Amino acid sequence: MSQISLLKSLNAAFNPKTVAVIGASGTPGKIGYTIFNNLIKGRFKGRVYPVNPNTKVILGRITYPSILDVPEEIDLAIIVVKAELVENVLQECIKAGVKVAVIISANFKEVGGEGLKREERLKEIINKSKIRVIGPNCMGIFDNYSGLDMLFLPETRMEKPKPGNISIISQSGAVMAIFLDWMAKENIGVAKGVSYGNRIDIDEADLIQYLAYDEETKVILVYIEGLDESKGKKFIQACKFTALQKPIIVVKGGKTEASSKAVMSHTGAMAGSYSVYKAAFKQAGVIEAENIQEMFDMAKALAMQPLPAGKNVAVISNTGGIGIMAVDALESRGLSIPELDEETKTYLRNNLPAGASVRNPVDLTANATAEHYRLAINKIANLDYIHSLVICLEFQTPQLDFEVLDYVYYAKELGKPIVTITVGGGLTERISRIIENNGIPSYTTPERAATGIYALYEYSRIKYSLI
Amino acid sequence: MSQISLLKSLNAAFNPKTVAVIGASGTPGKIGYTIFNNLIKGRFKGRVYPVNPNTKVILGRITYPSILDVPEEIDLAIIVVKAELVENVLQECIKAGVKVAVIISANFKEVGGEGLKREERLKEIINKSKIRVIGPNCMGIFDNYSGLDMLFLPETRMEKPKPGNISIISQSGAVMAIFLDWMAKENIGVAKGVSYGNRIDIDEADLIQYLAYDEETKVILVYIEGLDESKGKKFIQACKFTALQKPIIVVKGGKTEASSKAVMSHTGAMAGSYSVYKAAFKQAGVIEAENIQEMFDMAKALAMQPLPAGKNVAVISNTGGIGIMAVDALESRGLSIPELDEETKTYLRNNLPAGASVRNPVDLTANATAEHYRLAINKIANLDYIHSLVICLEFQTPQLDFEVLDYVYYAKELGKPIVTITVGGGLTERISRIIENNGIPSYTTPERAATGIYALYEYSRIKYSLI
Repeated sequence: MSQISLLKSLNAAFNPKTVAVIGASGTPGKIGYTIFNNLIKGRFKGRVYPVNPNTKVILGRITYPSILDVPEEIDLAIIVVKAELVENVLQECIKAGVKVAVIISANFKEVGGEGLKREERLKEIINKSKIRVIGPNCMGIFDNYSGLDMLFLPETRMEKPKPGNISIISQSGAVMAIFLDWMAKENIGVAKGVSYGNRIDIDEADLIQYLAYDEETKVILVYIEGLDESKGKKFIQACKFTALQKPIIVVKGGKTEASSKAVMSHTGAMAGSYSVYKAAFKQAGVIEAENIQEMFDMAKALAMQPLPAGKNVAVISNTGGIGIMAVDALESRGLSIPELDEETKTYLRNNLPAGASVRNPVDLTANATAEHYRLAINKIANLDYIHSLVICLEFQTPQLDFEVLDYVYYAKELGKPIVTITVGGGLTERISRIIENNGIPSYTTPERAATGIYALYEYSRIKYSLI
Repeated sequence: MSQISLLKSLNAAFNPKTVAVIGASGTPGKIGYTIFNNLIKGRFKGRVYPVNPNTKVILGRITYPSILDVPEEIDLAIIVVKAELVENVLQECIKAGVKVAVIISANFKEVGGEGLKREERLKEIINKSKIRVIGPNCMGIFDNYSGLDMLFLPETRMEKPKPGNISIISQSGAVMAIFLDWMAKENIGVAKGVSYGNRIDIDEADLIQYLAYDEETKVILVYIEGLDESKGKKFIQACKFTALQKPIIVVKGGKTEASSKAVMSHTGAMAGSYSVYKAAFKQAGVIEAENIQEMFDMAKALAMQPLPAGKNVAVISNTGGIGIMAVDALESRGLSIPELDEETKTYLRNNLPAGASVRNPVDLTANATAEHYRLAINKIANLDYIHSLVICLEFQTPQLDFEVLDYVYYAKELGKPIVTITVGGGLTERISRIIENNGIPSYTTPERAATGIYALYEYSRIKYSLI
């Protein structure tokens, strides 16, 4: 199938004008209820039709016994019927000319035996038709711009993040849901989320390629448990193409023997040898995060900051210890913390509090005021050989006025990446939220900030080596 | 000096009956004000005398021109005068028979030149007398049981943690303050904090040894930037002795060339070669944490949980992906996740939801209820060959009733270590706080939980190899 028709199908999945929910229900607690209810009561602007042969009205809407009875062409069918019924429902979707179907229903390949056979029969049906399918055994799509939301978890259990420019593709629906909930709590914006489950048709490579063209997406996150052997090459190609436009961060689940076995029963995928994946990720131009916290920290930096022109970092701090830890973490990530030149050191020595250290890391001491930060940031951010800044702010000391934030924001205008480190309690947490609302990532530990700077530098290397 | 007199002196520092604040002030914002005010208005029950030659009354209290004029023997003198005045003040303290002095004042060795000379003169004075000294250039002592609190940071900037059983020793005052603020936010209890700065007399080894005997302290955290060469052996001996009683977790700041240079101007210490430290930590029986987040995560597990009898871990989850990541993280930490025996697997298969995976990790699936957790936990926690449990709880799924917490708590009674993983947003955060209030650590990512289990296992190995 051509790439253009793939993109059209996926556009119908994320921005459908018409949607049918097959297996819609009027019974609260049922998945078919939650999805249908979210679509008609949420921000989604398309037309939504409930399909269910056992009832005439759901939530006040005329309900159709089959997709074939719906009085309009349907872009997207969301299928939430029992596994045994999916085959028949899908055939009706094809007959009705549905462009794309998301099969939420589980009990396919991942349970083996009869489920595996069901999945193989489905695959044959799909291969013979033009329909494109996401799933089965998935949570489907969350799109913060079209308002399409298939996440069937109640509001009381899970928050949804604000619109933003990070998108996540996940083999596991729960991992996606958890991640979105986490991002909502941390007030980080999300563009799209998609859980693709057993990927009977549309796979991670297709989704990555679609997101390459998606204007709302600036950073792509991928949680992957296993790739079919036959899909490796396609995955690498899609990533290479996409990484030229925007960064892709991958976390691989199932790295060891015990966890690989668990992968098989989770998403029916072969976890395979981790070293093969590591090599493939490298070749594909994706940044591998060790774990979901790293993925989160990398995403924040890449979503908010420009890329650095090199690996030299300046660290400015009012806490010697935190500055030292930041240097340790940055250097262990392969970044450099060059000693400042004599002219700069003299300037700083003459303008900073007694006892300040001006080498790099720059320790303004606990006596530092916002004005000291202003002087140091303005001088250092303008140095040609400094490519990014890590600014540690200890708000526990009363000398540090909150107007220091304005000086941190100012440095952003120079076009160099900046991240902050703010370790502490409630006040610190509140201020770091404000810093992030102004477009500068704020991290709770030196190592997390170093992870952010590393991701920026690593992506700049990937991008320029691919060009 | 004998060990008993050292312990007596340190007891006078942490639990003084009488305290003099030399350099007390009536001017809000001054360090001498904050410390004096905290001591008379806080929970501290001892008698507190202000000393300052320039005023007669501070905060309603008669103020003495010199420590020699105070009408009572003084256990502890807190010195907050200018660096130039410390020498004379200390000599008066010796004359007055003060047992121990904490010199908060800075501008000594860490600034070089005249400061270095001042520190050397102080050292001579101390060596010729019986007085013991903490500092200079430090934040002194925070004791959550005696109520002694020298932290001169305003309440509006920094929260204080609740009483608990973790104590922290830090070369950097700011690192200690930040850490206490962080623990307050996360509601983790603290026994004592002490920042020792340039350690002209009392050093980390002395403090570790004191905490070995401290009944309130169950876990000792140490942030260290550098040890004088002559102190290495003493440090190792103190740790070896103490590690038999309770775990010591160390974070070393200044691991690389750039950060080592920064250490010199921060606490005037030689950071030295990191590989030498690594070897010394190993020999000393301390657990090394890579960074402060690891230290935090390890401390929580060791403060709340018993030690495991071996390295076998069972992982129980209602989210396949999180269970898989937990296994990856545990195995990379050297722990084992053995496949469960046939009888147990059959039992689980017969009692858990369809599609559950019973090998280990045990995936209860998103359909799991609290009852499924109860069945799985009770069965698995009782297996001889399982030494600790990692329980992942995805509260985003509505099937999981909150009563599951009772079943998690129940498992605690079996005397095996348990930690939980709860990833997500606001609701998840709230529940994880409740879990911790009931004595079970709750971690926001699989890797952080693995760090906790690793610390428990590692300390059990250290303890039994030392015995």
